[in-house]
Parts: sequence; structure tokens; C-alpha cells
Amino acid sequence: MNTHTHIVIMAGGIGSRLWPVSTPEMPKQFIDLLGVGKSLLQLTVERFRPVCGISGIWVVTSDRYVGTVKRQLPDIPEDQILAEPVPRNTAPCIAYASWKIMRKDPDANIVVTPSDAIVMRQEKFTEVISKALDFTEKTDGIVTVGIRPDRPETGYGYICSNSAEEDKVVKVNAFKEKPDLETAKSYLASGNYFWNAGIFVWSVSTIVSQLRAFAPQITGIMDRLAESFGTVEEQKRLEELFPQCEKISIDYAVMEKSSSIYVIAADLAWSDLGSWSSAGQHIEQSDNGNRTVGPDVRLVDCEGCIVHTDDTKMVVVKGLKNYIVAEKNGNMLICPIEDEQKVKDYSAPKEQ
Amino acid sequence: MNTHTHIVIMAGGIGSRLWPVSTPEMPKQFIDLLGVGKSLLQLTVERFRPVCGISGIWVVTSDRYVGTVKRQLPDIPEDQILAEPVPRNTAPCIAYASWKIMRKDPDANIVVTPSDAIVMRQEKFTEVISKALDFTEKTDGIVTVGIRPDRPETGYGYICSNSAEEDKVVKVNAFKEKPDLETAKSYLASGNYFWNAGIFVWSVSTIVSQLRAFAPQITGIMDRLAESFGTVEEQKRLEELFPQCEKISIDYAVMEKSSSIYVIAADLAWSDLGSWSSAGQHIEQSDNGNRTVGPDVRLVDCEGCIVHTDDTKMVVVKGLKNYIVAEKNGNMLICPIEDEQKVKDYSAPKEQ
Repeated sequence: MNTHTHIVIMAGGIGSRLWPVSTPEMPKQFIDLLGVGKSLLQLTVERFRPVCGISGIWVVTSDRYVGTVKRQLPDIPEDQILAEPVPRNTAPCIAYASWKIMRKDPDANIVVTPSDAIVMRQEKFTEVISKALDFTEKTDGIVTVGIRPDRPETGYGYICSNSAEEDKVVKVNAFKEKPDLETAKSYLASGNYFWNAGIFVWSVSTIVSQLRAFAPQITGIMDRLAESFGTVEEQKRLEELFPQCEKISIDYAVMEKSSSIYVIAADLAWSDLGSWSSAGQHIEQSDNGNRTVGPDVRLVDCEGCIVHTDDTKMVVVKGLKNYIVAEKNGNMLICPIEDEQKVKDYSAPKEQ
Repeated sequence: MNTHTHIVIMAGGIGSRLWPVSTPEMPKQFIDLLGVGKSLLQLTVERFRPVCGISGIWVVTSDRYVGTVKRQLPDIPEDQILAEPVPRNTAPCIAYASWKIMRKDPDANIVVTPSDAIVMRQEKFTEVISKALDFTEKTDGIVTVGIRPDRPETGYGYICSNSAEEDKVVKVNAFKEKPDLETAKSYLASGNYFWNAGIFVWSVSTIVSQLRAFAPQITGIMDRLAESFGTVEEQKRLEELFPQCEKISIDYAVMEKSSSIYVIAADLAWSDLGSWSSAGQHIEQSDNGNRTVGPDVRLVDCEGCIVHTDDTKMVVVKGLKNYIVAEKNGNMLICPIEDEQKVKDYSAPKEQ
């Protein structure tokens, strides 16, 4: 295990597409969504254990979730739980973590990962991440992880690789945003399009110089902020400076501009659990393609439904096809699966 | 106010068609279903106040609901809350109350009523009940109350009167069970078919002699039971004898056999609140014919739905037409309104 390896887990999201199970008070990364006794965040840390000790784990989250992170990951060094005063998308988040890591370990080799995905093929995952880390240790490359698609998914971004080959670091041709169904089908057929898992591997010097080149507004702020690192002023300066960062994703800020982007593609049995249908695939299927979680779920003439109601006593559903029925903590959702991307809009707080 | 007037309120039902708002633990008659600050049982007692003092009110209920009745109606004489050890349908229930009343007041003139209906036209109701009581005071007749139908309802029984006239005691031609839609339409068109409100008016001597004639199995048991009335043996005898009664409705036991049945028909703005659609009519209608109860109900592309979720925080429903969505105390129902009669089957306890 290389002591220069650091894992940055981004855990600030509010998981609004999985409402009502995921809420701003307790987003999905902190929930035992699969019923395995561990939250998605805890599973993410475990997944990286073969490549990184607990001392190399960093979590970037929102102010309000710091307590939850500490409770769920009591072994992580407290100064490696980074609290964003406001959300500013992934580029400032990654910059902040990178500047922190650089100060501690200028030779750091970093994996940035979401906190809410699952990977069923652990060994393959370890192998892929190790290969990526080997590559970025020796080069100035940025390596992304591509997932071999098994369906024409329209909810994910895609990476177009120069090669259909798996388990090997190869050059990226282009990043593609969430496609429509026809396009997704052509991606699936082509063989060299992979789902973008949102995992990035790079050395700290690489990402810092790439950010300096393509996101100077952010790096200027980070340089000023870094002057306060380790001083009594740090928290105050963070609250002053971080909100001034441009709100931009790492994809737009760096990935689409940099010329040294690579991908290592693999079949990892990966899911981002980002929506009800992707989360639903991890619930066992019963008659008529229904997937249910709950103590007493009674489906009459239902087909292809996802019912996630583990807070309830009894649930009776009659005559629904391809619907999501979810209940948590007094919030309730009944919505066609095809409209799942709009769940976050339907459940958004009302304008005052 | 005639001191020989007694009201028998039948409050033993479990309201299974209004699950999950109505449950065996707290059936609908004990619930403030309309959000007016009073349960249906309390509203029933109030409705009879112009014709009967509190000392004339009797409630027959199940053992398990006695405490609830006492709490909701603290002024009722305790010995006028009658507890059936087991449910035996309406004939034994009415017989038991009649034997009790006969002992207290042999000249009693009685109204038997369900506990879970509502009547919006109170004055008309008082007038109708008073006319019926006047009639049964002077005759051996049995008077039923007929409701002028305003739609071809298939969920109610009908009374075929000899006359289309209202507000007058006239002879009954026949009782009709719940019809199919075509038949219900012809009833509505004919003018002399009325909904059977399940309200019966008779003198105690009339009902006792009618029961003796047509339900001797039950009256034999009542005579034996009556020997214990007012003794320390009473409860024990009740538990022994009452369960031996034939399980039969008053409609089958007496109404269909007796020759002296009358009806007084009226437009009372009555509803038995027996099902979600009849209960739903008392919820204000919003856009697209939806009727909702709940702190934050959000309907997207919904039409003609009844949403009753006052225990929840937020409810999002997308794309349902003519559905019931109800939640109470951890139980949840999502069911087409047209299947509402099956709700009690869907939610029935599982066979062990």
C-alpha cells in the first residue's frame, strides 16, 4: 500500500432524485440504501481499503453533514473531513481537497470518487484503481474510470475511448453528456463508449497545474485560502473565500479542456444509485418484475414497479405499471419510473 | 321531547372499506373523518339531540371499543353502552339493545341508526325522524328512512316505495340489494327507489314481537340472557349466550319478512361515508376534480383522485387518474376508485 495514495470522497450531494428516501436532512450517501447494514459512504471507504489506509481518506462534504460523517467514519483524521460552507459544484470541491493534500503530501497520488455509487466486483475495482494510480504516479495524465454499459442508459454521461479494450489505460476521445435513447443505443452498439463513473485519478501536481491552467479564478482563491491553512483564521477565511469560487463542475473546468485524459474501462458491476430505477436494480425482483422493500407490500395487478417503503406497516398498491412508490419519514412519492429525473423538481421546496 | 324516545347507535363496525384511515384498532366511526373536530359517532349523537336527550342514547359496540365510546361520549349512562363479546351482525345487536330497553321502558319508541353516516340537512332530518316516531308510537309499523338518490350508486341497497312522494310515511314495496350500474340507473329514473340509510324506527313492542316471529333462535337466547340483567351474572351470561346467536342482518331476519314496513323518504344530503368515493365527496374539489387532504399534497397530471394523507409531510403523485391515495399511521393505499369495494380484501390480515 503506497503511503502517497489519497482518496477524496465527495459527499456533499443532497441526492434529490431519490426523494423521499434521500432528503436534504439525510442524503442517500449516509443511508443504508441496500439494507446491508452500512451506508453508501461507509461502503465507499471499504471499497478503497485495499489501496489506501484510513489515514489517506479525505471526505469533502457540506457543513451540515460533518457530524454525520464523523459518526459514520470515526477513524478518519478529523482534519481530513473538509466542510464546504456552500456548495460550488465539483471543481472548487476538488481544488480545495487538492490544496489541502498538497500541503500535507506534495507527492500525493489521488483518487477522487463520488460517495454514493456501488461496485459489486471488488477485486476488479482494486485492480483498475491500482493500474490508474500506477499510471498517474509516473505521468502527468488524468485517468477516468469507464464502465462497460449493459443497457442504453440515458441517465449517465459517457466516455468515448480510443479503444474498446478494457483493463488498460487508453486515451479518451471525448466526453459525452447524458444522451437520448437513440444515441445511447448507438453508444452501446459501438463498444468504445463507457459510462463515466465520475472517478478521477491524478497526482496532486497534475490536478493543481491543470486547475491553474483552466480554472485560474478558483486557484487564485485557493492560493489565498491556503495561507490560512493550519491557523486560527482558517475557518473564517474559508467562509469568506470559498463562496467566491465559480460554480463549475470538474468536467467543464478541466476534463473537456485538458489534452491528457485517459480512461481505464472495466466491467465493474457498478451503479451510481442516482435514480430510482438504478437503485431499484439492486432490489430483488419478484413476480411481474416488481421490486419491493417493506415489511408488508401487497401488489395487485402491478408490473415493473419499484416499491421502497420500509418505514411502513402495510402497503396496498393496485393496478400500477412501471411506477415508483416510495415512503420515508412521512414523505411519499408515487411517480412513473420514466419521470424519475423530475422527482427532484416535484419535491423541491415551495417558493416562499 | 318525548321521554320514551330511545336512540340505538350501532358502533361495532370496523370500517374496512376505508382502510388505511379506518382500521380495526380505530374504525371510522371514532375518527374525525371530515376534519370538523368531532368523530362520526359524536356527530351522530348531536344529530339526534333535537329528538332525544342524552339519557335516551344507547350505543352498541364491540368489547374492544367500549373505552373509546366512553371517552368520546362521557355523558351517556354507562349501562347504556352495550358491548357485544363477538360481532353477530345487526339482528342480534338490535335484539340485545331492544331487550335492554324493554326492561327499562316498556313504552319505548326507538330509532336504530348506524354511527358512521353524515347528514347535512339537519332540520329536515329532525322532521323526518319525528314523523317516523309519531307513526310508530301509534302503530305496529316499522319505518325505514329512504334517501332520494342523486346518482346511480351501486354501493347502497335500495328501498322500493309504493310512492315517489317524500316526507310522508308510505308502504314499502320491496328492499333491493346493491344493484349493478344499469339497474341503479333505472332505479334513479323511476323516482320511487330510495337509498336505504339503515335507519329503523319502531316501538320496542313492535320489534320484540317481530323478532319473536321471525328470529326465534335469537329471541330465545335474549329471554335467557335477560334473566341475568342487573345481576352479577350478567357479563358472564352475555359472554356465554351472545356468541350462540345466529349471525344475521336485521334486513334478512325481519325487514324482508315483515308485512308492515314503511318508508319515509327525503332529500337529507346524506352519505354513509362507507367507501372512499362517498367519503371523498365531502372533501373539497380542486383542479382536475382532485380531492386532497394533507399538509403538502402535490399532484402532477392527476385527475379525479382522492388523496387523504393528513399524517404525512409531503406527498408527490404523478400521472394518476381516478385513484385513491391514502396513508394513515404507517399504512398506505394506492388503488383505483373503481376497485374501492375490494380495499377490505386487499388489506385483510394475512392467513397464518
